[in-house]
Amino acid sequence: MSELKTPYLMFLGDVGDQLGAKTAKGIVDWRPEWCLGQLRLEGCAADLGIADMTISEAARAGAKTMVIGIVNSGGFLPDHWVANIVEAMDAGFDIASGLHIRLASVPAIRQAAERTGRKLFDVRHPSGDLPTGKGNKRSGKRILAVGTDCSVGKMYTALAIEKEMHARGMKADFRATGQTGIFIAGSGISVDAVVADFISGAVEQLAPENDPDHWDVIEGQGSLFHPSFAGVSLGLLHGSQADALVLCHEPTRTHMRGIPHQPLPGLKECMDLNLTTARLTNKDVRFVGVSVNTSGLPADQWEAYLKNLEDELGLPCVDAFRNGVAPIVDALT
Amino acid sequence: MSELKTPYLMFLGDVGDQLGAKTAKGIVDWRPEWCLGQLRLEGCAADLGIADMTISEAARAGAKTMVIGIVNSGGFLPDHWVANIVEAMDAGFDIASGLHIRLASVPAIRQAAERTGRKLFDVRHPSGDLPTGKGNKRSGKRILAVGTDCSVGKMYTALAIEKEMHARGMKADFRATGQTGIFIAGSGISVDAVVADFISGAVEQLAPENDPDHWDVIEGQGSLFHPSFAGVSLGLLHGSQADALVLCHEPTRTHMRGIPHQPLPGLKECMDLNLTTARLTNKDVRFVGVSVNTSGLPADQWEAYLKNLEDELGLPCVDAFRNGVAPIVDALT
Repeated sequence: MSELKTPYLMFLGDVGDQLGAKTAKGIVDWRPEWCLGQLRLEGCAADLGIADMTISEAARAGAKTMVIGIVNSGGFLPDHWVANIVEAMDAGFDIASGLHIRLASVPAIRQAAERTGRKLFDVRHPSGDLPTGKGNKRSGKRILAVGTDCSVGKMYTALAIEKEMHARGMKADFRATGQTGIFIAGSGISVDAVVADFISGAVEQLAPENDPDHWDVIEGQGSLFHPSFAGVSLGLLHGSQADALVLCHEPTRTHMRGIPHQPLPGLKECMDLNLTTARLTNKDVRFVGVSVNTSGLPADQWEAYLKNLEDELGLPCVDAFRNGVAPIVDALT
Repeated sequence: MSELKTPYLMFLGDVGDQLGAKTAKGIVDWRPEWCLGQLRLEGCAADLGIADMTISEAARAGAKTMVIGIVNSGGFLPDHWVANIVEAMDAGFDIASGLHIRLASVPAIRQAAERTGRKLFDVRHPSGDLPTGKGNKRSGKRILAVGTDCSVGKMYTALAIEKEMHARGMKADFRATGQTGIFIAGSGISVDAVVADFISGAVEQLAPENDPDHWDVIEGQGSLFHPSFAGVSLGLLHGSQADALVLCHEPTRTHMRGIPHQPLPGLKECMDLNLTTARLTNKDVRFVGVSVNTSGLPADQWEAYLKNLEDELGLPCVDAFRNGVAPIVDALT
């Protein structure tokens, strides 16, 4: 597991819309102090709301890594970005990319890395040898965000919990399992990209032994109820050896993401299966709250929705964005 | 998913003991008609009980693929085997290997493949692009062998079911998900070696739409209760969209394979979790039997063990090796 050097220069290229810079925006939202500036080429339609900088300006400001935190259709790397990437390496930057294509597969980039000694990080592609999971009890505490579906706020919830823990002076580390999270944490493993035999082992490595009062706040992936990705979710759950689970949910979703024929599970059903399976590696696992993305609910209904859910489940139910996650962190102690 | 050309010449090299040729022995047991001969180097301590042949003898006999179906510590390829492999390609053979190392990573082998146009198959390493799982209902029937643990007879059971189905004139194909099975089927996907995002998608590709009265008999992997590999097992279960499940069990096992602190699940508990999770992609899934490897039980106890289990579970319980699997195939109709 590699550590990215911070702070970052955010490279946006000439991405065609704001959504294409979603990853970069997430990094700026959660780690503004690491994002010194943005580099935008002519025609770039996205804006992170931070200072525009050239590569040499960013180098003078102390940036250490140029982050390609954008999505373009196909995940490829446009030819006309290569010169910027090479220039950044010549200016002393490592390069970290969230694209599907591996940076080193572009000959000019690979050669520049060899020549300059700068590092290339493809955060979607796990590097290094992973062990298989062992399920041995590890010291320290772990909380994992699980979901009724993909893209229901697991990363956001985990980051909000880390922030709340830090505000209370607790020892806590967000542990990233996906590309945006890795840029935000500065390290991590894209667990959906590891070889299947090593899913739980990757998470054991990501959240190793720690102080008894330290919390790893682990980003979940997928859902045990998603026909495409449940295997990832189960391995992640087993490797996490979670003491505490938070269920993440989006109440307006009508079917599992990308699978129109597949209904969402009930919240209770989803919690039951997560508990049943999580007990394999931690008998004392429990849910400590539910984090709901209520942004799709009418303005006069979201509070009642959360209140009803609390009554039904007997657990703190919050919208992490609107209310924060203090009641969930309260429930841990 | 590649198809191996048959028949085979079985290459044993100078493997140090019979156990090292376990994969090759499995191929000879299940596909004797494909195994024309064995090639053993000086010092080879294994014997498949078939004719010894040189490469040119095997070529004259019609062999199309030389199979390296052996295990040596570390999974590497000894230097002194390379000349034999190159010679085989010059004689017109494709090469199929179950070693961890990729054949093409050995320069002399890669060059010989390019020069001769012969194909290299690394059955542990999936090739080609895989889709993510979709969970769409596919025509045809599917039966999957699941386990309380790893290495409890899932492949053997699936092959025995295919054989029984063929004996009855049923349309059936064994679908291989591990390296030995792939040599036996002549094709397949090592699902524990695919990227985690594609576990269920790999199995959907492996067992595609078929005639309404056709059975895919799918080899399972791992166990939902194994802390290392449960993610693989769950993705395999979802991708299989199984109509019928067979539980495989080894009653003398005292802990999950490789994990001394992890007890085995109860059979009922294991069946319940398999059904709960399998229903995500096939609501009508049911267990049709239990296949027990009773070889570790005393000679005067195994029959009573199976009888008691039948009474307890209300399902056919067999030792596939001792009794065959006819009662399980009966239960399908």
